[in-house]
Amino acid sequence: MLPDKAIGILKHEAPVAIATASTDGRPHVVGTWNSYVELEGNTLLIPAGHFNRTEENLASNNKIEVMIASKEVEGNYGLGAGFLISGTASFQNSGPLFDRMKSRFDWARAVLVVNVDKCEQTL
Amino acid sequence: MLPDKAIGILKHEAPVAIATASTDGRPHVVGTWNSYVELEGNTLLIPAGHFNRTEENLASNNKIEVMIASKEVEGNYGLGAGFLISGTASFQNSGPLFDRMKSRFDWARAVLVVNVDKCEQTL
Repeated sequence: MLPDKAIGILKHEAPVAIATASTDGRPHVVGTWNSYVELEGNTLLIPAGHFNRTEENLASNNKIEVMIASKEVEGNYGLGAGFLISGTASFQNSGPLFDRMKSRFDWARAVLVVNVDKCEQTL
Repeated sequence: MLPDKAIGILKHEAPVAIATASTDGRPHVVGTWNSYVELEGNTLLIPAGHFNRTEENLASNNKIEVMIASKEVEGNYGLGAGFLISGTASFQNSGPLFDRMKSRFDWARAVLVVNVDKCEQTL
């Protein structure tokens, strides 16, 4: 599970960064908002609108890093806190997790399911 | 040069995401804040405190993607705008660009210099 401070960050609106890479090492980052991220046990659920290159990357290389941050949360050096979440991820366009996100985000074509291996405070 | 709307985003505080990858395809993302990014012609200047894995990745694979976003700027679908900046990057720990950033951020051990190839509005 994510630590309480990380969960607290999700309550302050800010961009979330989702980084993947192609197998030949081309990095890619896409975004969502803190308020769009849902937690289900040790996974993050993120509604996917476009995210085409992210899906393409994950199909051959399922490693992912997600950064969440807020300038409004006290961090290690004063105001401003951030966490780096690493793990593996996949897209689901059917099933209970997809239905749950689709009911809230009607534009979602899939849900990005991130299995969290590690969540470290970086700021 | 970055379009005016992208420059406008930098005036609203929010996390900036900086994505790189190892040559074997391990993605990595680190962050800074919109207010820390400076422009110099077609390059972004970002003060580097830690960013160790970013520096390591760039030493063997100089591709980078940077995401800037703000929920306070009107985007393609209402409030919330974002840009994806792609290019190449390197660390500099001496020279005029480093001195410039170091004078503003005394904790900076280097400046991350991002040469912008493309800047596209994604939101």
